[in-house]
Amino acid sequence: MPLTRTPLLSETVRKLVARGAYVNAFNILNRLHPADIAGILADLPEHLRREAFKTLHQRNLTLAGAALSELGPERGASILSEMSSQEISELLQELDPDDAAPFVSRLPLELQEAILGAMRTKEASEVEDLLQYPEETAGRIMSPKVFSLNEETTVGEAIHKLQDAGDLEMVFYIYVVDDRGKLSGVLSLRQLLLKRPETRLKDIMETDVIRVTADTDQEEVAQLVASYNLLAVPVVDQQNNLVGVITVDDVIDVIKHEATEDIFRLAGLDTDERVFNTPRTSVWKRFPWLVVNLATASVSTLILLLFRGTVERAAIAVAFVPAIANQAGVTGTQTSTIVVRALALGETYGSLPRLIAREWAVGAVSGTIVGSLLAIAAYLIEGNVTLSLILLLALAGASSVAAPVGTLVPLVLRLLRADPAHASNIFVTMITDGTSYLLALALAALVVTSIS
Amino acid sequence: MPLTRTPLLSETVRKLVARGAYVNAFNILNRLHPADIAGILADLPEHLRREAFKTLHQRNLTLAGAALSELGPERGASILSEMSSQEISELLQELDPDDAAPFVSRLPLELQEAILGAMRTKEASEVEDLLQYPEETAGRIMSPKVFSLNEETTVGEAIHKLQDAGDLEMVFYIYVVDDRGKLSGVLSLRQLLLKRPETRLKDIMETDVIRVTADTDQEEVAQLVASYNLLAVPVVDQQNNLVGVITVDDVIDVIKHEATEDIFRLAGLDTDERVFNTPRTSVWKRFPWLVVNLATASVSTLILLLFRGTVERAAIAVAFVPAIANQAGVTGTQTSTIVVRALALGETYGSLPRLIAREWAVGAVSGTIVGSLLAIAAYLIEGNVTLSLILLLALAGASSVAAPVGTLVPLVLRLLRADPAHASNIFVTMITDGTSYLLALALAALVVTSIS
Repeated sequence: MPLTRTPLLSETVRKLVARGAYVNAFNILNRLHPADIAGILADLPEHLRREAFKTLHQRNLTLAGAALSELGPERGASILSEMSSQEISELLQELDPDDAAPFVSRLPLELQEAILGAMRTKEASEVEDLLQYPEETAGRIMSPKVFSLNEETTVGEAIHKLQDAGDLEMVFYIYVVDDRGKLSGVLSLRQLLLKRPETRLKDIMETDVIRVTADTDQEEVAQLVASYNLLAVPVVDQQNNLVGVITVDDVIDVIKHEATEDIFRLAGLDTDERVFNTPRTSVWKRFPWLVVNLATASVSTLILLLFRGTVERAAIAVAFVPAIANQAGVTGTQTSTIVVRALALGETYGSLPRLIAREWAVGAVSGTIVGSLLAIAAYLIEGNVTLSLILLLALAGASSVAAPVGTLVPLVLRLLRADPAHASNIFVTMITDGTSYLLALALAALVVTSIS
Repeated sequence: MPLTRTPLLSETVRKLVARGAYVNAFNILNRLHPADIAGILADLPEHLRREAFKTLHQRNLTLAGAALSELGPERGASILSEMSSQEISELLQELDPDDAAPFVSRLPLELQEAILGAMRTKEASEVEDLLQYPEETAGRIMSPKVFSLNEETTVGEAIHKLQDAGDLEMVFYIYVVDDRGKLSGVLSLRQLLLKRPETRLKDIMETDVIRVTADTDQEEVAQLVASYNLLAVPVVDQQNNLVGVITVDDVIDVIKHEATEDIFRLAGLDTDERVFNTPRTSVWKRFPWLVVNLATASVSTLILLLFRGTVERAAIAVAFVPAIANQAGVTGTQTSTIVVRALALGETYGSLPRLIAREWAVGAVSGTIVGSLLAIAAYLIEGNVTLSLILLLALAGASSVAAPVGTLVPLVLRLLRADPAHASNIFVTMITDGTSYLLALALAALVVTSIS
């Protein structure tokens, strides 16, 4: 079964909302999974999205909350922006605190206070607790509603307590704590079924619990859950008190988010840019990198200006340099992409000198092969052996430099505690462009009389 | 707690294996989680990796199988390559069939037959069944060991059967089938605990089961599990017979794999290239794209050759064109990256004309701003207003073209059923390079006397 949401369904809802048939639109939305409602809302133009959400909000507050949560804080923000702080409070207190926190954190500070003030005290303080932790840490994404039992509890009592704990949807592990609330063990739900009712949890629990502290980076949490095939990981504070739990569905969100972040940063984009931003926001977000890019791209310009005489006398050589720079750039960024991804996935790459030697070999060999093709093409056009030799040397040379540079730049950025994905390609391209133009033009300048 | 594996531990194992202290190395590995063993094996140079694995294999077959499974078929292949088909069979039959299948499928056909022939009949036929399904489908990644019960079963009987089902590690949902084996409902483990023992499953099960067919693309399965926050999804054949289950840990692997695939393809790399490939393999894998890239990069060369006279007479204009082409290329690939990622995540982007208009606005505005900066810089260097105007027009023009092109190329590739991630950037860059060189040189040719 594919997703229930279809373009047809979105279109139907759009038409109904557009002509004010709110009850009909609600009757459709009300039958759907919150994730599908979120998908339909995302499909709608902004003003209809607000109307459709309002309809849902008035008639089914819980479902509206769930759909908002699935829509995520980026796209949900524009919906909230039209609502009163009282309405936002009512809506957000329907959400789990870990789902509500990202929405609250993106609002202006005064509005945050107004909203938290208007929420029920318990929900507000749970959200406030989460917002104490820095962004992108375990504490920020954990659910504080963690099902835990004292180690003296018997299996029979545990089953009763599970039956009473109504609103906990995703319980697969039962965390066991000692009298002081410190995490001491874990049990799976299935293990409970296998034991006699009078057995105490402390006698059957697994004491070697994989856990994270609240300040652990969310990417590290995701790697841990993925490596060990966990369904959830408990979160403790520095004193080993159990403070929350992160479930695998949140980890999937983190993994998708981090992958998008890397993909966008490799292209020089801001992380939270999406196809649904306004053009003004996009220009503003991309502008700083375009300026940095202009500065780095000017390396070629400087070299061309430096060799201006050669450009005038040997225009034919210049004609081939963009192709050389492009090849070297691709070779360099291929290498840096592999290294950036290996760093992100926590893959190891053995020893550094071996890695660089390997990448150098790949760059030199492929540069020589592609350079030969270019030299042959140039010979067919111009019939000048000197020119072809220059092109071959420049391409092989620039590619040989490109691969080690592509390896080193992300590793150096990592050492400097910068995000390798963010800036690697721009610096790699600067170096490969510079090398390509310098090699080709310097060689051409040496033998300018025989190719002009 | 971070991952148990540390560089120090890898180093210790390396030293022990290198000097033949196999028992000591085994004693360390034997205490670790299979994922950590896999990490350590990956850190070792190839010959020591084989030695370390052999040590483990001889002393703890089950753990060796689990570590091999975590290592994955790409890195595991080099370990298997040194073993006899008898040894491989013994090892692979320790694995779950869905973990064993990827290893078998990567071996030469004759070896596949020898290995399946030497495995226990039941395990061999389970693996063979999975290999019937095409790669990257639900059938290929599912586990055929799915826990299901007849709908007439009572809750009490179900709990007994769960207690007896020994080797099923990840049971969270109980799938319910009718007398003919057709999937008819689902129950969570926790729901079992809440009902009286004599209740029949058919009276309490959820009948609206989210399911996939065995031929569903694995990326679609991952989107489904992620959207609906599932822990597992049942797999049925065309007749709705329950044939397997895909658990969330497999989905995480798919999500990571698909993200890596997109990141690599955006850089023009083959999907299964990693930092641990040999240089020869890498050259071979990258070569086709480098040649395509050379061909597309030659568009600039052709234009420069066409305007050779202008290049000779207005070398100063040519000096700035690489910076213009670079800007337009970045603008175009930023847009195509956003669109490619939106397609991959199944995000919608509203109507196409609106998207293109939006991207056009972003490109035109940022192109004009950055173009003005370039024009000012050029004026400071050359003091020639005409030159500055040409550069501004060329950059603004090329950026305006870049953004719609960046939107359309991935969408057209998608319509042609090609992978947008694979080829978008190469075509986008070809068009932006071409536009930049053509605009700048054509404009320069028109006014060549006033800038030379």
